[in-house]
Amino acid sequence: MYQLNETHDPELKSWVVSANDGLTDFPIQNLPFAVFRPTASDEPFRVGVAIGDQVLDMAALAASGLFSDSVQDAVGACAKPQLNELMAMGAAAWSGLRAELSKALRQGSELEEPLSRMLIAQVAVEYSLPCRIGDYTDFYTSIHHATAVGSLFRPDNPLLPNYKWVPIGYHGRASSIAVSGQKFHRPYGQVKAPDAAEPVMSPCQRLDYELEMAIYIGCGNTLGERIDIDAVDQHVFGLSLLNDWSARDIQAWEYQPLGPFLAKNFASTVSPWIVTLEALAPYRKAWDRQSEDPQPLPYLDSANTRKYGAFDIELSVYLETERMRKQATKAEKLSQSNFEHSYWTVGQMVAHHSVNGCNLCPGDLLGSGTQSGPEHEEAGSLLELSRGGKEAIQLSNGEQRKFLEDGDVVMMSGCCQRQGAARIGFGEVSAQVLPARSETK
Amino acid sequence: MYQLNETHDPELKSWVVSANDGLTDFPIQNLPFAVFRPTASDEPFRVGVAIGDQVLDMAALAASGLFSDSVQDAVGACAKPQLNELMAMGAAAWSGLRAELSKALRQGSELEEPLSRMLIAQVAVEYSLPCRIGDYTDFYTSIHHATAVGSLFRPDNPLLPNYKWVPIGYHGRASSIAVSGQKFHRPYGQVKAPDAAEPVMSPCQRLDYELEMAIYIGCGNTLGERIDIDAVDQHVFGLSLLNDWSARDIQAWEYQPLGPFLAKNFASTVSPWIVTLEALAPYRKAWDRQSEDPQPLPYLDSANTRKYGAFDIELSVYLETERMRKQATKAEKLSQSNFEHSYWTVGQMVAHHSVNGCNLCPGDLLGSGTQSGPEHEEAGSLLELSRGGKEAIQLSNGEQRKFLEDGDVVMMSGCCQRQGAARIGFGEVSAQVLPARSETK
Repeated sequence: MYQLNETHDPELKSWVVSANDGLTDFPIQNLPFAVFRPTASDEPFRVGVAIGDQVLDMAALAASGLFSDSVQDAVGACAKPQLNELMAMGAAAWSGLRAELSKALRQGSELEEPLSRMLIAQVAVEYSLPCRIGDYTDFYTSIHHATAVGSLFRPDNPLLPNYKWVPIGYHGRASSIAVSGQKFHRPYGQVKAPDAAEPVMSPCQRLDYELEMAIYIGCGNTLGERIDIDAVDQHVFGLSLLNDWSARDIQAWEYQPLGPFLAKNFASTVSPWIVTLEALAPYRKAWDRQSEDPQPLPYLDSANTRKYGAFDIELSVYLETERMRKQATKAEKLSQSNFEHSYWTVGQMVAHHSVNGCNLCPGDLLGSGTQSGPEHEEAGSLLELSRGGKEAIQLSNGEQRKFLEDGDVVMMSGCCQRQGAARIGFGEVSAQVLPARSETK
Repeated sequence: MYQLNETHDPELKSWVVSANDGLTDFPIQNLPFAVFRPTASDEPFRVGVAIGDQVLDMAALAASGLFSDSVQDAVGACAKPQLNELMAMGAAAWSGLRAELSKALRQGSELEEPLSRMLIAQVAVEYSLPCRIGDYTDFYTSIHHATAVGSLFRPDNPLLPNYKWVPIGYHGRASSIAVSGQKFHRPYGQVKAPDAAEPVMSPCQRLDYELEMAIYIGCGNTLGERIDIDAVDQHVFGLSLLNDWSARDIQAWEYQPLGPFLAKNFASTVSPWIVTLEALAPYRKAWDRQSEDPQPLPYLDSANTRKYGAFDIELSVYLETERMRKQATKAEKLSQSNFEHSYWTVGQMVAHHSVNGCNLCPGDLLGSGTQSGPEHEEAGSLLELSRGGKEAIQLSNGEQRKFLEDGDVVMMSGCCQRQGAARIGFGEVSAQVLPARSETK
């Protein structure tokens, strides 16, 4: 397990020159999947693979018959307008396709000439959701986030007794998930000030982002059968970035006793590119539980989890305000964290989700929950950075933020990098807050 | 609004004789939709309409071209293996189709001869889910249930302050919803006894049903746009029965702070037949708020809601144990309630769900939450009937139940009846608890 193969070799170069600069998110060791078409065209959406600043059109590749018979089914699935069919094929199919893509895009490949005609510049394409998301589940795996938010919502009782035993998660809304570039209106909802006798209907005043990893299920499990923690890698297609927008004032009033609802389901934004688990293999890390904390129950534990359960993925959040756009200043970094801080692993999330027999399906999305690091400045939400809206964040252009304002664009990025391995990036997820609509009641 | 038309005339008779006995759930005034095929056949699933003890094969009707041009699109949508296409067409299309079905199935119709060849006995068919359910939301609209359950989970704080202002709901799991006839294994999960220091992995010991109405969205709303409470009837296709199975011991340990998760997503069962809102028109009732309770915020209120917001639907739960089957005794009624007790209306649920811009889609399912009546014996769950497992329910064959045992079949039925209107029934939803699988860890 997690044996690296030749597709991970950091010395590999591509004949697509932009893949070789050491700075791109998409070197030949990455090969993530998205669904795209030329911008503003009527062409059908289809699967693409990122290489440098280009997209390899997988529908064109499918039509060409250039790849070997053993991967023709996988290539054929890429002509579809979503990844679900490829996702359902399983880890051997994904790996076989990756191996051929790596060879074909490598310097010296005899397929350079035909494949070069299947490239489209990333700046010239638009993306759709990468797959049909049947169900969306959001976890809560950062103990730093859970403690910080818990202390704001329940000062006397920040971290509940189940947190260190149960990978806490809840069902989210699939219909309102969109791909990077989403623009959404500030939501309305019932809010109640702590000192008010009654709630009022109001545009959200405490609009926030949440910095999360998205985990896409590849092949699922039959209803009633569970996925063993050591089989999870066979079931997870890959990871991307997720901004789980949150209306904190609506959430505070509605969330008891059944959890967040309208505070979360007005919009969620994912990055277009899904980085496969295989591409992330060099960045798997040992996972451990502090000795003073309870050790996980057996269904959430294994030797492999201890050895490789964590992912070393650096995550950053940037804010671009209306004024920054007018003054042509760059977006400002608000915080940086790392997925390695997660209290629960991807394997634990999937094993837990299915331990009761719940069936996961190809294309299902699991959110990791906000990935806040141990330090205050590593927080993955404004709620935490502004300490519940009590301390404004000072931006370098003189602006301040406690929560998001109309026109704000939030951008998130993620990447893996270390000596001796190729840089593996996630691209970005970006979306904009529009003013609340005018309403009559 | 809610003007009755000739399809509601209680004097109407069908040439399908079994529709006229006054006892059937499916007289000619009902005309509910399901998706079916002959039992154990390889035929494709397609839409059917119930009439007496028969199913009218709508795919055969579509192929016949017998209906008028104005409803051909709606009839054509019924050749599909799910109702989503018909649902998306909107209330005028549903109503037009109902009017032609009513005429064609009426005594004296000149279509009797060709349509009689499109009938299949209900005893000879099997059902699938009536539609592709994109998202499932479960509400909590019975104040009697919320108070009774709240007093068990939070004795000091049974009904939270938001309950009388917010139609509380949360997102559920769509993938594990199945049609009546579902059999599922008793789920495993983490449970912690109140006096235990640590949780353990165990088969659920407090397995329960929940008696709910299912509300199916017909045509949806665009992300960012809300559905006004007085437009809801244009967006709801119809209602059926829902058993929202619940693992109370898993729920008690996992549900804070983000709500129920594995306690709910191992199985949910719906009845096959969807009764349209138009069929239910004679059973709309005035809805009111007790004067001592807060009046709803304007987006949850309207003159029409006050006049017609409630539905008079009688709901019953039956239990059939292994011993009853062996001794060939009938299933025993556990309780009876009525949807008219709901604290929040269907219109309020839909208006609330979309007030923040959340997009509802054709085929989405809203659960009403457990419909317990004001009296203890009208409770819609064992948790309530057994007072949290403290008092066993005595069955007439000598058996007892605090929670469900392996082999138990739970059956729910619903019907509308009163003087001067035709009886409108929902058929039934029935499902069985299988023993927990054996597990190694």
